[in-house]
Amino acid sequence: MAGPLISFLTDFGGESAPAICRGVMLGIAPDVRILDLNHGVRKFSVRDGAFLLARAVAFLPVGVHLAVVDPGVGTTRRGIAVRVGRGDLLVGPDNGLLQPAARVLGGITAAHELANAGLFLPHVSTTFHGRDVFAPVAAHLADGTALADVGPPIAPDALVDLRLPEPVARSGGLDTAVLFIDSFGNVRLAGQPEDLAALVNGPLEPGRRFRISAVAIGAGGLEVTWQSTFGEVAPAASLLYDDADYGGLALAVNQGSAAERYGLEIDTPVRIEPAPR
Amino acid sequence: MAGPLISFLTDFGGESAPAICRGVMLGIAPDVRILDLNHGVRKFSVRDGAFLLARAVAFLPVGVHLAVVDPGVGTTRRGIAVRVGRGDLLVGPDNGLLQPAARVLGGITAAHELANAGLFLPHVSTTFHGRDVFAPVAAHLADGTALADVGPPIAPDALVDLRLPEPVARSGGLDTAVLFIDSFGNVRLAGQPEDLAALVNGPLEPGRRFRISAVAIGAGGLEVTWQSTFGEVAPAASLLYDDADYGGLALAVNQGSAAERYGLEIDTPVRIEPAPR
Amino acid sequence: MAGPLISFLTDFGGESAPAICRGVMLGIAPDVRILDLNHGVRKFSVRDGAFLLARAVAFLPVGVHLAVVDPGVGTTRRGIAVRVGRGDLLVGPDNGLLQPAARVLGGITAAHELANAGLFLPHVSTTFHGRDVFAPVAAHLADGTALADVGPPIAPDALVDLRLPEPVARSGGLDTAVLFIDSFGNVRLAGQPEDLAALVNGPLEPGRRFRISAVAIGAGGLEVTWQSTFGEVAPAASLLYDDADYGGLALAVNQGSAAERYGLEIDTPVRIEPAPR
Repeated sequence: MAGPLISFLTDFGGESAPAICRGVMLGIAPDVRILDLNHGVRKFSVRDGAFLLARAVAFLPVGVHLAVVDPGVGTTRRGIAVRVGRGDLLVGPDNGLLQPAARVLGGITAAHELANAGLFLPHVSTTFHGRDVFAPVAAHLADGTALADVGPPIAPDALVDLRLPEPVARSGGLDTAVLFIDSFGNVRLAGQPEDLAALVNGPLEPGRRFRISAVAIGAGGLEVTWQSTFGEVAPAASLLYDDADYGGLALAVNQGSAAERYGLEIDTPVRIEPAPR
Repeated sequence: MAGPLISFLTDFGGESAPAICRGVMLGIAPDVRILDLNHGVRKFSVRDGAFLLARAVAFLPVGVHLAVVDPGVGTTRRGIAVRVGRGDLLVGPDNGLLQPAARVLGGITAAHELANAGLFLPHVSTTFHGRDVFAPVAAHLADGTALADVGPPIAPDALVDLRLPEPVARSGGLDTAVLFIDSFGNVRLAGQPEDLAALVNGPLEPGRRFRISAVAIGAGGLEVTWQSTFGEVAPAASLLYDDADYGGLALAVNQGSAAERYGLEIDTPVRIEPAPR
Repeated sequence: MAGPLISFLTDFGGESAPAICRGVMLGIAPDVRILDLNHGVRKFSVRDGAFLLARAVAFLPVGVHLAVVDPGVGTTRRGIAVRVGRGDLLVGPDNGLLQPAARVLGGITAAHELANAGLFLPHVSTTFHGRDVFAPVAAHLADGTALADVGPPIAPDALVDLRLPEPVARSGGLDTAVLFIDSFGNVRLAGQPEDLAALVNGPLEPGRRFRISAVAIGAGGLEVTWQSTFGEVAPAASLLYDDADYGGLALAVNQGSAAERYGLEIDTPVRIEPAPR
């Protein structure tokens, strides 16, 4: 019999801090299986953590998902545990981090504040709630503690929300926005290849031309080609492609940073239209 | 009872992509134990992946070995699963990646093409077969699916091959070649310390001098000493040594890059001879 | 039933070498659960490894703790396994690496030299005892081999010792020293926030001023404020704070290196006094 599963995402970096949290969880729930999802989230970027968690959870088994990107640690922000439609439990700070993943998993059906100190480590520091609060509660939940035992219920719509941009097809183009910028400067946009295929009424052939508009790009916008791989374009050329890791639209400069070259930031509005033939 | 073991090597980098594949595998085979072998293989370097996998597998328990370095993803290259003499199953693209490891484990005794889409994720992307094809098949095999169920058999000698250079003792020297260059520029050469000991008819004493010849090194070659550790030579001095991680000959420059200084690349022929006393 | 737990800390870096050791352990003890603690210890820094292990073990379940930072590999230094007061077993080289962690866990109650080659891999290299000696012995111990079976007993006080600095309150100030410098140049000092609170006879309020003295800082010392987070001070300003990962005093320069600016090294004596109001 496989033990319960806890997935684990933080901005702690890759070394001792996540390992200590794993040790705490294994001390409480020896049978638990821990799946490290990502500890390289940009420090304090709740938005990046929310994006990365939301894009991963659909591929994970039902379980407990522990996420800690917590610039408010030590302030009055709440810790929460929520149940979602698919049956998973999500544990983390009430700062929006869990919201996009919860929507992917069917929406929040119950939420509770982490208030039962009997489930925490005996000494709770002001700065490392991942170890002292969130990991112990996640382990107790994985081990069978009832959700209601973590603390008083909260109305789901009273939680801090965080919404990722959604694409909208309008007037023959796609109004989208920047979702995520990776460490190479590749820009992940809201929307799927199917949305572009709908614009051109047919399959997306490599080499198909599109016009990208954004305020920082300036008048006339930018013309790029749809490609299946970076290798199809020359170094320093731009391309639109289907991002391998998460299956969604992305804009890149081969061997360069698209974010830097085009002045794109998180949430920057971007419009994509078929280029005139 | 310990669950079945899957070792896992990719060029995906260390974060979300391998974790999502682990989640997919645990969803299919909850009892599986996953041993992450290396996700830092140089991007798209089938050769480096083949080397790193081949050097590791002898130290791993019998199990399923999943390896994905796959520049041909989305093209017509096949996915394969093979059985080897020791009893392990290897899963990955048919691009040579699995071949050196298979030889270490006794050679391929059966090979099948990954064609049974019932073992894949329901939606197969064009760019992330690690998640959609290879990981699910590896998990099903670990969970007891018969090898023959993954798809039609392939004659082992019809698979794409990849051979790493082998050392040859000739005329009092060792004809070898570059196997692998690590991120520091240390150069791993085919052959073992025993091969050099045979050249000098005795134990390899630290300080023993050898002459290294390669086209890029130029006339006269390079004289280096055999050393047990980097610390035995001055900064910027060169040394021959037994590579700690994999037990084989290596050429390095203390606090420098041997590959860069001597113009050595993967497969560059190199000859080693005892230096005149 | 959860299998036995082995925590694992090395300076091997994050890729193949720790994975090969994990494979060796799983081959010997298939039920073992391996908790990777940190493989990014500064190369050959026994002191850093000892600090990181000592700060983590209290948060880990009782188990086997395998630690390998071993600049003396291939020399005559001994390998050891020790039992501590809490019941854990620690395995590693006899170079002091295990000592601070052993003290945290109640002190060494028995020590044995790793001499029983029947517990090693059949071929022991000169350079990779992590794989060939330490990992196999740790796995056998986790699997039930008696401690006495690893080799002859050693008197605990005959082991190589390593002591981390301890803080001493004296004449209204705290005499402390540098414990650890992280990759950002943040300086971890011996002592706890409570030690500073005792100096000021009350709670540590953010903004409270302290004077830091050290030889390299020069006459007059350095005046800094106590802060709960980096964000409370301007870039390039210095602060004293409670280190998030390990719960102890630390000195940092916001967006800079405190170690470099103030010439602080491991074991440098540092004195902290309340600044005159």
